[in-house]
Amino acid sequence: MKEVGIIGAGGLTGKELLKLLNQHRYFVPIHITSNQYAGKKVKEVFPDLQLNKIADLKFSYHDESIPEKIPLFLATPNKESMDLVNLFYKKENRVVIDLSGSYRINNLEIFIKFYGFEHKYPEILKEKVYGLTEVYRELIRNSMFISNPGCYPTSVLIPLFYFKEFIKNAENIIIDSKSGVSGAGGRVEDAGFSFQNVYENFRAYKILKHQHEPEIAQYLIEFSDYKGNIVFTPHLLPIFRGILSTIVITWKKDFELNDDELYQKIQKATEKEPFVRLFKNPEEIELKNVQFTNYCDFAFRSRDNITVIVSAIDNLVKGAAGQALQNLNLILDYDEIEGLK
Amino acid sequence: MKEVGIIGAGGLTGKELLKLLNQHRYFVPIHITSNQYAGKKVKEVFPDLQLNKIADLKFSYHDESIPEKIPLFLATPNKESMDLVNLFYKKENRVVIDLSGSYRINNLEIFIKFYGFEHKYPEILKEKVYGLTEVYRELIRNSMFISNPGCYPTSVLIPLFYFKEFIKNAENIIIDSKSGVSGAGGRVEDAGFSFQNVYENFRAYKILKHQHEPEIAQYLIEFSDYKGNIVFTPHLLPIFRGILSTIVITWKKDFELNDDELYQKIQKATEKEPFVRLFKNPEEIELKNVQFTNYCDFAFRSRDNITVIVSAIDNLVKGAAGQALQNLNLILDYDEIEGLK
Amino acid sequence: MKEVGIIGAGGLTGKELLKLLNQHRYFVPIHITSNQYAGKKVKEVFPDLQLNKIADLKFSYHDESIPEKIPLFLATPNKESMDLVNLFYKKENRVVIDLSGSYRINNLEIFIKFYGFEHKYPEILKEKVYGLTEVYRELIRNSMFISNPGCYPTSVLIPLFYFKEFIKNAENIIIDSKSGVSGAGGRVEDAGFSFQNVYENFRAYKILKHQHEPEIAQYLIEFSDYKGNIVFTPHLLPIFRGILSTIVITWKKDFELNDDELYQKIQKATEKEPFVRLFKNPEEIELKNVQFTNYCDFAFRSRDNITVIVSAIDNLVKGAAGQALQNLNLILDYDEIEGLK
Amino acid sequence: MKEVGIIGAGGLTGKELLKLLNQHRYFVPIHITSNQYAGKKVKEVFPDLQLNKIADLKFSYHDESIPEKIPLFLATPNKESMDLVNLFYKKENRVVIDLSGSYRINNLEIFIKFYGFEHKYPEILKEKVYGLTEVYRELIRNSMFISNPGCYPTSVLIPLFYFKEFIKNAENIIIDSKSGVSGAGGRVEDAGFSFQNVYENFRAYKILKHQHEPEIAQYLIEFSDYKGNIVFTPHLLPIFRGILSTIVITWKKDFELNDDELYQKIQKATEKEPFVRLFKNPEEIELKNVQFTNYCDFAFRSRDNITVIVSAIDNLVKGAAGQALQNLNLILDYDEIEGLK
Repeated sequence: MKEVGIIGAGGLTGKELLKLLNQHRYFVPIHITSNQYAGKKVKEVFPDLQLNKIADLKFSYHDESIPEKIPLFLATPNKESMDLVNLFYKKENRVVIDLSGSYRINNLEIFIKFYGFEHKYPEILKEKVYGLTEVYRELIRNSMFISNPGCYPTSVLIPLFYFKEFIKNAENIIIDSKSGVSGAGGRVEDAGFSFQNVYENFRAYKILKHQHEPEIAQYLIEFSDYKGNIVFTPHLLPIFRGILSTIVITWKKDFELNDDELYQKIQKATEKEPFVRLFKNPEEIELKNVQFTNYCDFAFRSRDNITVIVSAIDNLVKGAAGQALQNLNLILDYDEIEGLK
Repeated sequence: MKEVGIIGAGGLTGKELLKLLNQHRYFVPIHITSNQYAGKKVKEVFPDLQLNKIADLKFSYHDESIPEKIPLFLATPNKESMDLVNLFYKKENRVVIDLSGSYRINNLEIFIKFYGFEHKYPEILKEKVYGLTEVYRELIRNSMFISNPGCYPTSVLIPLFYFKEFIKNAENIIIDSKSGVSGAGGRVEDAGFSFQNVYENFRAYKILKHQHEPEIAQYLIEFSDYKGNIVFTPHLLPIFRGILSTIVITWKKDFELNDDELYQKIQKATEKEPFVRLFKNPEEIELKNVQFTNYCDFAFRSRDNITVIVSAIDNLVKGAAGQALQNLNLILDYDEIEGLK
Repeated sequence: MKEVGIIGAGGLTGKELLKLLNQHRYFVPIHITSNQYAGKKVKEVFPDLQLNKIADLKFSYHDESIPEKIPLFLATPNKESMDLVNLFYKKENRVVIDLSGSYRINNLEIFIKFYGFEHKYPEILKEKVYGLTEVYRELIRNSMFISNPGCYPTSVLIPLFYFKEFIKNAENIIIDSKSGVSGAGGRVEDAGFSFQNVYENFRAYKILKHQHEPEIAQYLIEFSDYKGNIVFTPHLLPIFRGILSTIVITWKKDFELNDDELYQKIQKATEKEPFVRLFKNPEEIELKNVQFTNYCDFAFRSRDNITVIVSAIDNLVKGAAGQALQNLNLILDYDEIEGLK
Repeated sequence: MKEVGIIGAGGLTGKELLKLLNQHRYFVPIHITSNQYAGKKVKEVFPDLQLNKIADLKFSYHDESIPEKIPLFLATPNKESMDLVNLFYKKENRVVIDLSGSYRINNLEIFIKFYGFEHKYPEILKEKVYGLTEVYRELIRNSMFISNPGCYPTSVLIPLFYFKEFIKNAENIIIDSKSGVSGAGGRVEDAGFSFQNVYENFRAYKILKHQHEPEIAQYLIEFSDYKGNIVFTPHLLPIFRGILSTIVITWKKDFELNDDELYQKIQKATEKEPFVRLFKNPEEIELKNVQFTNYCDFAFRSRDNITVIVSAIDNLVKGAAGQALQNLNLILDYDEIEGLK
């Protein structure tokens, strides 16, 4: 058995990590922290986690000493994660999977503009590998520090990766994403996330201002050499789990995709992928097919110089804890799907 | 008091018309039809319509004779409406407001492609006025036959109308619309509209195939001379009422909007409009502000050569029954807002 | 036109009063207060209140002077209402409809136990009339101070009133009530009323401790001379509007109701009531029939010495604002249903 | 590995069994049937079942031959189950866990009254053991035919079992149960289970007529010798999963419970139970604590001669598939919690 730890295990992502680790046959969480719940057992904090491996585990304070060398998941806020990566990865030389956004953006000016504080460790920034498993699998396998992707970017970059050879012909990529409340980052005390304000309601937020837009742009450009527009608009769905992204690509004049050929090709490219599923019709993509799973589902349809892609993930699994575990499996040389199927 | 009738009053739109007419000080529904409910009273069919003017009104069969000359709302399916317009408007010379899609599309080939049957009355098609009140108010006032707009097109065309002088500089208009179940057209017996399949779920439908896309295109081109791409993707929200549309415009190179100036200008253009509200920030647009009202709310934000517009309507009111009543008020020379505020 | 005022018009009940007053042909709200929204117009605070009579009305502070003699609705918290009744009714001699719980309980010890503070005006307590319209109509008509019933008690006492001659034969009255969030009194900042904690969830609250239990008991005893057990358990439904109460009566040995006879009798007793509807089968009682209406629907079924009654109201209308308006109509000698149908 | 089968694996209960068996380290489903899905793989029918052990398993027709001796779960409708028990248990001598209601009621007249057809195998009826694990554990261990309890009865009988020595002092047991749609038995094509009719709505059903009432009565009397009234009222919640039951007991005059003492006692009685959790306050019982788990949570509070118990289960797990698996674990001598934690 391999011992692992979770810093910030008391939130939604931490809880999801606990659930997944319980199913893992080789990893065992031995150190989990939460200042809010320190001293309590998992089963007291999360009465629905009836899971034999973790139920009696106790939360520690963040600053309690952690057994040497055990790999850590950081499910902490951006600013905290920035410092903890320095501590755990740089100083203590551990394997670290950071689920925050603090090491995803390379450009320091863009970082400060979207995250609101200056990055203290630009040199560490360069050492991270972006944990989008399907795209950077080999880099991940050989890294000790993973910056795990945002939930929205995961839902967008995975399908676009399979279009990468064509992306240079695109002029605009217009992304309209819709997330359940667990992906939209609100705290239960925020009036904006009260039942009264979410139920039987719908709205867009952070229009042209969401920190996941530069994240999408950076990695899309990295793997596809894209030069056109990217527009990303997130919305809040009155549900708990799941992100569905509708991605419209407008191609340069005279460029047209052959949907059938491309379908064959992407099917081939994804058939060995354990967590990517290509569907025939974009109408088949729906959140209920991916909730509680580590899948990214997608499908597409074209007309003239337009292609519409629809993709879906569970924001807490493939968009956070699941992908993080997938990455740790790779790094520690376990089967990539362990704990995830 | 002015007597009016509703053909097909037993559905969601018919019910909404009944509610609105109850509030109207001058119109009184005296003839309402529904083959399903013929012989029953409104209060028996809709126990939540406790409204003194309509509660005891009885549903007739569709083919019962209708008092001469009374104006009619048609809340019937497309194919039925096609014939009823011929009967009531052409032959019987009544004022007719058709809420179906059967007379919205001018191009007969496009019509058959999206509606699935041939149009039998191309000559009547040419006589209709499209009932988008804010755009065609004077034409409506002088017409006897209104083809009432679709719910999605209403949410899209109203905001775009205020951008009409710039639209010639647009290259792409990418529309991502989300509707509650009452706007998505499902019957309660469809498994796709069961609680189990809608709740805690989300999906797109009719991708690049929805009949409201050519409707949007036709009228947008009519009032703005637009020549670029239009992409429309509808989605099904797990709520009952309301449509929110996110419209991304990409402008030609070197064309940029000045948001502040444009805001002033549109504010001026809309300030006299009783049912159009411009907001400062697109984050303020949300369904709960428009549910049960005849408002169309919208706001926009630009960056470089991109503009994002967010709009919201109640699909049953401004997207159907409310706009229909607004139009009949105009035709019969009543205050446009009568029954709607 | 008759001028009226609302103290505490910025909450859910105040908003509902505004909506109803807009429909009233004779009452016009001229003074509305809300410390939170003072200086703002109704249409700024409630964008969905597009109503011509009230949209431009401005909120005042609670302590601004109020035109002499205008009748007031108090939609203020319990403790505030206690003092405001003394001010407006006792000192200023106005007609006052208090929607809080501060004057409903006669017994001072029970009051302090359930409300948590001592009652300062026991003499005024004796002057109030309990505003359960169907039961105390004549008293209400001749009163200047109405203590408007709680939402749960309204849903329970109206149906039980029609059983009053039999209640002396009852041994137990077990009431299980379920309310949407608008009736359960939570603020949008309470974590317990967050989307995450209400959606796809259900729970009971204040078990054997809810202040509406002694309210039900007091008035039930008053009109029926009941001596048995009363148990009231409230629950929080993941919806916005409506209360459904399931009331089980166990009768003394050898006492059995004849359902058919009783149905005839209650039908007769309620047929003139504008807002009480008796249904044949308790399965027909559902919230969607009463939402946004002032109706109390109920039905019952017996077996041996057991009777089950199911009732439903809209907690914001019949359970609060609607019944308050019904009462003011009576006091000021307008048609009881004015503004409510 | 132990091979097992599921007859009727295409429904909600069958799907839940598949999910649980995937987690089981020793059981492997090798034969699953569904006439609707015959020939398809699990992963095609249930895209959210991404589980390695079951994803490629194919559904057979009901009447295809089944490997000898493998134990079977019957997730078939009542009438079908009645015959299949005869076939699989009686004739083929297999271990059978029947999840339908067809063998729960002993009294043949009551059976026909509530199930609507005559029971063809009264002699087999006598051989069944009722699979309420906590109550009949030893009998189950030694049985080959289990009639698995209904979801509502499970939520009611488990807590009442811990009151069994006092039940003789009870006069009335009034049970008010609320279930999500997955427990209420509707098909997705039923208009009554459409999104439009369930969402933002609530209603009771089968009042004094639900088949789970005699089931509760029969087993309550069996383990407690109760002689008083039992009233059971089920309700439909606008959620997917979970049952919460509010049980009010009225005791004979002069009988009062000491809550603290009883709490200690029940805590002792349940502390070794892997799936029963006693809470201190009935306000702590909520569906989100038990969803997706095999737990039955409950708590109680008394006042004078009244006790209120609140209990919660996941209807698909403890109320169906989970308890069935718990029982098969016992029969085949595996750890009772295997696959369930």
